[in-house]
Amino acid sequence: MTLTGHSLIAGQPTAGEGKTTFGFNPATNQALEPTYTLLTEEQLRAATAAAAEAFPSFSTLDPETHASLLEAIADNIEAIGDELIVRAGQETGLPAARLQGERARTTGQLRLFATVVRQGDFRGVRIDPAIPERAPLPRADIRQRQIPLGPVAVFGASNFPLAFSTAGGDTASALAAGCPVVFKAHNAHPGTSELVGQAITKAVKDNGLHPGVFSLIYGPGASIGQALVADPAIKAVGFTGSQAAGVALMRTAAGRPEPIPVYAEMSSLNPVFVFEGALKGDIDALAQQYVTAVTGSSGQLCTSPGLLFAPEGELGDKLAAAVGRAVSASAGQTMLTEGIARSWNTGAENLSSADGVQVIGQGTPGPTENAPAPTIFGTGVTEFTSNRVLHEEIFGAASLVIRYTSVEDLLQAATRIEGQLTASLQLTEEDYPTAARLLPVLEQKVGRIIVNGWPTGVEVGHAMVHGGPFPATSDSRTTSVGTLAINRFLRPVAYQNLPQELLPEALQDANPWHLNRRIDGEVVAAAEKAEVSA
Amino acid sequence: MTLTGHSLIAGQPTAGEGKTTFGFNPATNQALEPTYTLLTEEQLRAATAAAAEAFPSFSTLDPETHASLLEAIADNIEAIGDELIVRAGQETGLPAARLQGERARTTGQLRLFATVVRQGDFRGVRIDPAIPERAPLPRADIRQRQIPLGPVAVFGASNFPLAFSTAGGDTASALAAGCPVVFKAHNAHPGTSELVGQAITKAVKDNGLHPGVFSLIYGPGASIGQALVADPAIKAVGFTGSQAAGVALMRTAAGRPEPIPVYAEMSSLNPVFVFEGALKGDIDALAQQYVTAVTGSSGQLCTSPGLLFAPEGELGDKLAAAVGRAVSASAGQTMLTEGIARSWNTGAENLSSADGVQVIGQGTPGPTENAPAPTIFGTGVTEFTSNRVLHEEIFGAASLVIRYTSVEDLLQAATRIEGQLTASLQLTEEDYPTAARLLPVLEQKVGRIIVNGWPTGVEVGHAMVHGGPFPATSDSRTTSVGTLAINRFLRPVAYQNLPQELLPEALQDANPWHLNRRIDGEVVAAAEKAEVSA
Repeated sequence: MTLTGHSLIAGQPTAGEGKTTFGFNPATNQALEPTYTLLTEEQLRAATAAAAEAFPSFSTLDPETHASLLEAIADNIEAIGDELIVRAGQETGLPAARLQGERARTTGQLRLFATVVRQGDFRGVRIDPAIPERAPLPRADIRQRQIPLGPVAVFGASNFPLAFSTAGGDTASALAAGCPVVFKAHNAHPGTSELVGQAITKAVKDNGLHPGVFSLIYGPGASIGQALVADPAIKAVGFTGSQAAGVALMRTAAGRPEPIPVYAEMSSLNPVFVFEGALKGDIDALAQQYVTAVTGSSGQLCTSPGLLFAPEGELGDKLAAAVGRAVSASAGQTMLTEGIARSWNTGAENLSSADGVQVIGQGTPGPTENAPAPTIFGTGVTEFTSNRVLHEEIFGAASLVIRYTSVEDLLQAATRIEGQLTASLQLTEEDYPTAARLLPVLEQKVGRIIVNGWPTGVEVGHAMVHGGPFPATSDSRTTSVGTLAINRFLRPVAYQNLPQELLPEALQDANPWHLNRRIDGEVVAAAEKAEVSA
Repeated sequence: MTLTGHSLIAGQPTAGEGKTTFGFNPATNQALEPTYTLLTEEQLRAATAAAAEAFPSFSTLDPETHASLLEAIADNIEAIGDELIVRAGQETGLPAARLQGERARTTGQLRLFATVVRQGDFRGVRIDPAIPERAPLPRADIRQRQIPLGPVAVFGASNFPLAFSTAGGDTASALAAGCPVVFKAHNAHPGTSELVGQAITKAVKDNGLHPGVFSLIYGPGASIGQALVADPAIKAVGFTGSQAAGVALMRTAAGRPEPIPVYAEMSSLNPVFVFEGALKGDIDALAQQYVTAVTGSSGQLCTSPGLLFAPEGELGDKLAAAVGRAVSASAGQTMLTEGIARSWNTGAENLSSADGVQVIGQGTPGPTENAPAPTIFGTGVTEFTSNRVLHEEIFGAASLVIRYTSVEDLLQAATRIEGQLTASLQLTEEDYPTAARLLPVLEQKVGRIIVNGWPTGVEVGHAMVHGGPFPATSDSRTTSVGTLAINRFLRPVAYQNLPQELLPEALQDANPWHLNRRIDGEVVAAAEKAEVSA
């Protein structure tokens, strides 16, 4: 495909009238062609207006066309072929195998949402049939369904240029809900964004849909983002990125004349708790798994473990030593941008200069620019609970091992941590009583709890929660990964005494969309005949 | 029961160390015994701390005890007997029959949530079983459930001293979700609040629960409310009241170090759209129904119709004349407070002095203080769309008839209204094509659409939506009435590879709580055997 260097507003390549930017190869610190033109706030309105115009038809699309759109986007992304992997590799420094896996995750996610659209439970059909004979007052026929909120603004993340970007989970779930998407490209991978944006645009066109269903916009980072979230046509926001940027968008959304929901996934330390029993097994393997989780993708994963709690004593010492050996054998990989590498260095310096923090082990720097040496630090639980610097996320290949002396220590430390995406436990059967004490505390802090596994590798399924209390996300009631993510973009509407002719398909007696329905409070499968009209 | 005049903090009557207040009879403008002592912000902490302390045990309660609590509250409210109706009548001016109906609604709501707790679908169980043989990577066992958010602050409304107050929908749904409640009494009905608060306190005690599950607090209106919402122990807010107060709480909640959700139900004009066909029937009956909906409970209902769109022309003229006659025959009823009556007068004066607004008809003032004459105004659609004063809610028995000349007029007017709780259509079969054009616009504006009925009388069921876009509520994704309201106080947590011994009951293979479960994306009824472990 040809990269135009322009925004794609409702299917039309549109040259920005603002400044320009370009992709950057973090392995060489060199700019990549073409130059990308940035939209002005005035130009942005064309995208949001088109999204609003597309909403009435897109929000009421029949399930088959709707699902076909999502599948066509997946097909079109695959059809780009190696060009996508090459360009994404140039813009992010991520290796081809990782990007191929991420592409499979992205297309798999789109196809999973196609099944969700066809299956239809997300429409949340509830029917309380009329009871004309009820005394003292008859009951009216009341039916409920979930409808899409309206146009959604999505902000891509730098660390997943495919799966959390242009056609990533936020876009896929918003489109699946029936919401047009205005996607603000991350300036760290503009070419990758354009390739995927072209794939979406083609799918929208080939399915005969209003072009305003999708726009891809390039603009000056923070200011165009704020303008997008403030735009009255936008009804919800999906965001993955830093806490500072996420909180800024939350404030803008809450301060609008009409406040709107923001789903921001921000920062997480993903603590790992190692219990005594787990240390009676293969300590070297445990240490190696931990270091792999810390250093994979150069540690640039939302779920990378930033903290590991290990007991004091001989076995804990053995684990620390094994971790030191494992990380020493690791090598740095190119980080996503020069700026991210710089932030990593600052974070690592702050941590190593904190009282009571030592370096347990350090790998070697990578062969390219911006590839710092993975580092694992160590400290005690008292230092951890008393110093907030030790609670700050270092985005990249760094982690902190915290030694605890008692279960009470551990419980105390757990109550002090902020909201997280995940918590992981390494244990054997003898640790169950201890784990049972910790679990209720962790449930209040995280969105996912893992036993004898590592938090990296987020399965895209029906039961996944990639979310958690603030500041891990802006809204603990949701997930940004998995099929439950579609609920973020829906709201209920009730219909009282509507004649069949005026009811939406989802709520008609004849059930033309073959939906499961909650009738008088109990789910009735689509296949079952149900008397819903009095 | 004896009224103590004190807050009930975790079961203990607690004298406030701040100022005092008292109930007020709006029919006579006289104070009611006893004096109520107001808490200081410092004292408030005892209630939120107790709620936080109660959370671990209350949030994990077995369904049977949990449901029994809700039923015991309902029983205890009924056991108060006439004393409750008399006191509520003295404090609000509402007639006994209305209050008896409201009490039945309140206890029915509590018992409905008991069935929800026993049925268990709100726990949102999802299981994606492990697939050990999957290539290239095995799939882990992942299970999801919804857990309660934490202690909830609830603010009672003045206009429903029972159903939207101490043991009203917000309290019932929060308790049903497993969240302790700190209830801020409305100062307009302190005695009613205390009677119901004592009923809840007794139910908590008799069921052997931690007393922090419920506290009833009296405090200086705005300041204690802000302190309560700002309290770090509070994790969500339920509110029914004015837009100004609701928005102030939203801002406080959004500005906290840890922002929390606010479910505020605020203001609504509840437009009614009368189509040509509906005027070929009994115009007098239609006019009378409208006036009854406007004047019932002195118009102090969230769903009272504040706007009625009727066509220009002969039949529309007949309707306006019939409305004038019907309202002239009506009499004012005592409003809830002197302040509310004063606001009504100001609103009615503003409306009558607006350009192009006439009085269509006016009833007679009531025999008591604070019982202004019901008034219905009239104007044209052009005046309505061009003057925001005509879009302001007048809380009480007032409404505005807007005459339209064309369907385009109507569509245009509908796009200009703000978010509402409801919209109602009066129509016959010949109007279906027109209604079909209006419905998509209304769906974007309201939470409930009614055909050939009136918005007052909100059914408490599974399909009800009492909600809508801002400013009708703070969060269009929810409802404050009906069983879906429980979702406001829940969030999902995923459990990856947990051994059966560490899984919560709701997620265990053996399914001890007999829950319906979503397995690999499809609902499997509790009664069906399902293979969920690999």
